[in-house]
Amino acid sequence: MKRRAAGASGAAAGDAALADLLRQEGAPYDLAGLRALVAGVLAAPPGRDPAAWTTLVVPAPSPSLRQVLLALAAEMRAAPAAAPLAPAERLARLRSELKRRRVHGFLVPRADEHQGEYVPSRAQRLAWLTGFTGSAGLAIVLPRAAAVFVDGRYTLQAQAEVDDRLYVRRHLADEPAVEWVAATLRKGEVLAYDPRLHTVGEVERFRAAAAKAGGSLQALDDNPLDAVWSDQPPPPLAPVTRHELRFAGESAEHKRRSLADKLAAEQVDAAVLTAPDSIAWLLNIRGGDVPHTPLPLAFAVLNSDASVDLFIDRRKLAPGLAEHLGNAVRVAPPDAFGAALDRLGAARRRVQADPASAAAWVFDRLAAAGAQIHRAADPAQLPKARKNPAELEGTRLAHRRDGAALTRFLAWLAARAPEGGLTEIAAADRLEAFRAAGDNFRDLSFPTISGAGPNGAIVHYRASAQSERRLEPGTLYLVDSGAQYLDGTTDVTRTVAIGEPAPEMRDRFTRVLKGHIALATCRFPKGTTGSQLDALARRALWEVGLDYDHGTGHGVGSYLAVHEGPQRISKLANTQALLPGMIVSNEPGYYKTGAYGIRIENLVVVTPLERSGGEREMLGFETITLAPIDRNLVAANIRAIQCRGINRRLIFVVRSVRPLSPCGHNPADRLAVGPEWVRSRGDRTDCGLRGRQPKPLDSIATAR
Amino acid sequence: MKRRAAGASGAAAGDAALADLLRQEGAPYDLAGLRALVAGVLAAPPGRDPAAWTTLVVPAPSPSLRQVLLALAAEMRAAPAAAPLAPAERLARLRSELKRRRVHGFLVPRADEHQGEYVPSRAQRLAWLTGFTGSAGLAIVLPRAAAVFVDGRYTLQAQAEVDDRLYVRRHLADEPAVEWVAATLRKGEVLAYDPRLHTVGEVERFRAAAAKAGGSLQALDDNPLDAVWSDQPPPPLAPVTRHELRFAGESAEHKRRSLADKLAAEQVDAAVLTAPDSIAWLLNIRGGDVPHTPLPLAFAVLNSDASVDLFIDRRKLAPGLAEHLGNAVRVAPPDAFGAALDRLGAARRRVQADPASAAAWVFDRLAAAGAQIHRAADPAQLPKARKNPAELEGTRLAHRRDGAALTRFLAWLAARAPEGGLTEIAAADRLEAFRAAGDNFRDLSFPTISGAGPNGAIVHYRASAQSERRLEPGTLYLVDSGAQYLDGTTDVTRTVAIGEPAPEMRDRFTRVLKGHIALATCRFPKGTTGSQLDALARRALWEVGLDYDHGTGHGVGSYLAVHEGPQRISKLANTQALLPGMIVSNEPGYYKTGAYGIRIENLVVVTPLERSGGEREMLGFETITLAPIDRNLVAANIRAIQCRGINRRLIFVVRSVRPLSPCGHNPADRLAVGPEWVRSRGDRTDCGLRGRQPKPLDSIATAR
Repeated sequence: MKRRAAGASGAAAGDAALADLLRQEGAPYDLAGLRALVAGVLAAPPGRDPAAWTTLVVPAPSPSLRQVLLALAAEMRAAPAAAPLAPAERLARLRSELKRRRVHGFLVPRADEHQGEYVPSRAQRLAWLTGFTGSAGLAIVLPRAAAVFVDGRYTLQAQAEVDDRLYVRRHLADEPAVEWVAATLRKGEVLAYDPRLHTVGEVERFRAAAAKAGGSLQALDDNPLDAVWSDQPPPPLAPVTRHELRFAGESAEHKRRSLADKLAAEQVDAAVLTAPDSIAWLLNIRGGDVPHTPLPLAFAVLNSDASVDLFIDRRKLAPGLAEHLGNAVRVAPPDAFGAALDRLGAARRRVQADPASAAAWVFDRLAAAGAQIHRAADPAQLPKARKNPAELEGTRLAHRRDGAALTRFLAWLAARAPEGGLTEIAAADRLEAFRAAGDNFRDLSFPTISGAGPNGAIVHYRASAQSERRLEPGTLYLVDSGAQYLDGTTDVTRTVAIGEPAPEMRDRFTRVLKGHIALATCRFPKGTTGSQLDALARRALWEVGLDYDHGTGHGVGSYLAVHEGPQRISKLANTQALLPGMIVSNEPGYYKTGAYGIRIENLVVVTPLERSGGEREMLGFETITLAPIDRNLVAANIRAIQCRGINRRLIFVVRSVRPLSPCGHNPADRLAVGPEWVRSRGDRTDCGLRGRQPKPLDSIATAR
Repeated sequence: MKRRAAGASGAAAGDAALADLLRQEGAPYDLAGLRALVAGVLAAPPGRDPAAWTTLVVPAPSPSLRQVLLALAAEMRAAPAAAPLAPAERLARLRSELKRRRVHGFLVPRADEHQGEYVPSRAQRLAWLTGFTGSAGLAIVLPRAAAVFVDGRYTLQAQAEVDDRLYVRRHLADEPAVEWVAATLRKGEVLAYDPRLHTVGEVERFRAAAAKAGGSLQALDDNPLDAVWSDQPPPPLAPVTRHELRFAGESAEHKRRSLADKLAAEQVDAAVLTAPDSIAWLLNIRGGDVPHTPLPLAFAVLNSDASVDLFIDRRKLAPGLAEHLGNAVRVAPPDAFGAALDRLGAARRRVQADPASAAAWVFDRLAAAGAQIHRAADPAQLPKARKNPAELEGTRLAHRRDGAALTRFLAWLAARAPEGGLTEIAAADRLEAFRAAGDNFRDLSFPTISGAGPNGAIVHYRASAQSERRLEPGTLYLVDSGAQYLDGTTDVTRTVAIGEPAPEMRDRFTRVLKGHIALATCRFPKGTTGSQLDALARRALWEVGLDYDHGTGHGVGSYLAVHEGPQRISKLANTQALLPGMIVSNEPGYYKTGAYGIRIENLVVVTPLERSGGEREMLGFETITLAPIDRNLVAANIRAIQCRGINRRLIFVVRSVRPLSPCGHNPADRLAVGPEWVRSRGDRTDCGLRGRQPKPLDSIATAR
């Protein structure tokens, strides 16, 4: 109590000084405006430089202004929140709001307006309402029942987080939400939804389900949950900065022109962009509005004259960004986006929008305004996926630094684990510290998955103080991690044996490795999709009746999202051919619930191959991830078969991180002093799995 | 001239006698009616029993009536047609008819009202107009230009058949018709189409193309080409007969009930069936309206009470068929189909139709009448694809007889080819004769592809007197053939060396065989699609930069279409999981234009596997085709690698048909006296490619 009173009076005293400082340094904010700005800043993740936002107030704040601003932010962050509402009260308030609006039910998805993987705190409606904090899910609130739908990754987490007196829990895939609606909604009832948070396909499915129940589906103009979420954070305001040309490799002007020409050729007048990573790529900008992906949340319209209307909060543009954007990019506030769609419609324009990523609201609004809608993929998606030479060079350098950090970590782990007592979070923190020491490091690219023993079998495991385990002898340790560097984004998984692994672990690991190698070394004709190659990574497991329940590979951005499309290596049908320059992960695995998990993940670049006697244009993969694979987990009898099949193009780092490696060296000692390792390159003819004299690779030994 | 006059007077004299006979035997036809019936009979392929149709006149015609009827048919078949119009005149008449109807252009697809692979003579509009007789294509007629679009299989054929002063020729895939329309149609012009001949998807694409050109697309009530095609054949009238329960394995009543229950569960009132093979399967009937597939052309509506409205020409129902169909199947004329759709609409029914197989006209008519349309796959398609135990047993027996015929042929070929002078058509005829000698044989399942040397490289080659080659030493001979038996449909391809093959031929053949074996022996989890497995069949070719430009496998019917869905093993994305009981072909190939073609095709059945230690429900393939593979084309060095990888589940007949086989036997001699061969089964542990003592397989030795 005392401190709050002191803080309040201190703040009151400081207010006048702050107002003076703002005036003196020419800031365009009064105190209320500044507080609103800081509230937005605090609604974004802190980022690597927690003072960077102060340049949003004035481009070069004086040390004293900077200090006062940081103090203000600290004070606002520390201000006690209102007593949190109990989940039952939240649900009751939402139901009463729905009643007020004369609808009966409401869909609460995890998605935000951008259908992104990471959402800002403001958009965490599902978590606020139900307590469920996973990265995918859906709640449906009806008058007499409510349900939370999560997938298999989150069954246990939902059980812990969601009050089952309020919500029934359902499996997102096995017990589809539409079936629950069809069975639970009553005749004549209206199920409402926020059309900014759903794709057209989702809306259609729920419309059919509501009709099946004799009810109906209705779009609402604004979100009733926002109306009852009293302390909902504001939209995030992380500084939006320029992505330098040396990393981007192509000017924003050139990108705009190139995409606009394609639109014009298709007789499209404008394309709506709602995916922030597309906008970031197109305009060579980066932000920090959500965790782990440098996204500036925004909407945009790319016109066929190569101009762009960018709908973004001006307050978050870092100094100099307006000049970077140039005159052909018109900046308008986010809430002007709807009116812009109306104008396109009124002018009877042919407007392209992507049904996979743009919200139903965009289509509804364009159609109502009279636009001709052209449904087609986000025009930035494919060029963004095909990295240019500068981006590829950048990502190779980033992978060298990242590989050095991971190798240091694995060497440290090999030395540290036998001492005992090492825990998952401590290990992940150590790995992060190795990475953070590298040049151009900005953030992890996702929360590290650090799973010991049975926790390794949880595919999207995230260690907590409650869940974490020690790395015990005789178990496997799985670490899936990555980083955002200015020059590239990494994502790598290694599984290592702590102590001596059981024969079954070796067998499974070797089958996963066989799949990994089969994919890494395959050659395929131009036009091949990732779906066509997926089975190569699974075949060695299928042979003995095993499999894994996740995709084999996802696209990866260039200092952007660690998961991006349109390419994918997956069981799911996908029509996007793998094209030169695309980065994709190669990550088969095997998971034994309650026992252990195995995953071996490298990133690869799709690369044209020399024709050399063949008839077709062929492509292959260049593995760019550099880190040892635990040779102690390779079973010799399976290896023998594999070696004969794939002995030409092995491009892995294959080296034990265990003190007693089969080749008689003590790589852990070596690795502890520096990132020296063997890299079996394509010009070697053995498979790299046999004992080999480690050689330092000088260029990498000095990489930071 | 003399003969014609005699025939005419003879017919006049015979007319009175025929009228008497018809009356005496209680036929429901007068002479005009009979002539109309016979015209329909003649518009269908002749079939195996060219007198079978006489039972359509009276159930048991007397020998004298039968004789007179056959004479009438012979006379009508021989009657001279009107002098054929020149192609330029046909095109001119169509253009003037379009002008009369105030439209500018018209689409002439190869498809008929059923979107089938084989179409009756009446529906061969593309061939009548342009001369192009291939099995896929499209013509577009505009006021100042006309184009014919064919795919790569038919480039040469179209060049020979289509007059390039009238039509520009385009590649169906590389130069899409919609782009030609967008570039060629003029502003304000109307492109017309017959909505019974196009799917909704096609219509949408052409609508967009016409709009892009500033024109429009318009459906016509009837086909203007039919109006100018003066001697267009009538709809075919081949006898529709019962498919016996011992072959079908499930009664039609049970099938109707089972499908209707599923419709009811989905709250669908009725499903429209426009695919004749679905109707044939559902009602356990077979017909003969098109070549090589025992289809009764018809439409149907399956109601959720398990009754069926069948729209079919009653005249073609064989004696006893009405009893077989029963009271729950109401028969109405084909032209009552539209009114039935109107009634469903007027009653506001929820009606299911398949956008992939039903014509746009069905959707238009249902929508206009007020029906709620439920777009979903033809409900018979999936159960038809999953063969029941009786169908599987039938197909295994059919494959034994078929394998015996093919093996006799290959043995004959091994002896005959070295004598020289053997031609493609003579070889195909010999093969057909071997097949026709077997029990339950009804027809070939498609025109035999009999390709010597360079002709083998033409994937859908059909030998003609002009094109056929001799089987020369040092070349490959490819024969892709199959038959319709009452108990099953077969489709098999073998490639054999005539004389000594070149090392490159052996290398390519062995790679194709490796792919074939990789697919035949693979194990995969429940839920896997054919698209996921396709790469296994291509990998050995991809390794050296080669590939083939067709799918790896298609579904096969049970005494039905040799190509059926929904499953497929293909590069193309496909979401249909392979399910137990599905039959699919396994047919990788390699084609060197101007030199030789290789294809190795067996049919396989999707089969559940024992779990034996694994965790997942796994499936595999049972190869049901039985015929030797030419071991003289297997390269030992590649074989060695393959053997080690796949030595457990080889299930092929692998035996040379050449006099000097590697195992020192003279299998040709043996094969010439009977179908004895080695079948390496799953319980053997070698790969079957090594020398082995041939053993007679008694049950097959006596198979007919």
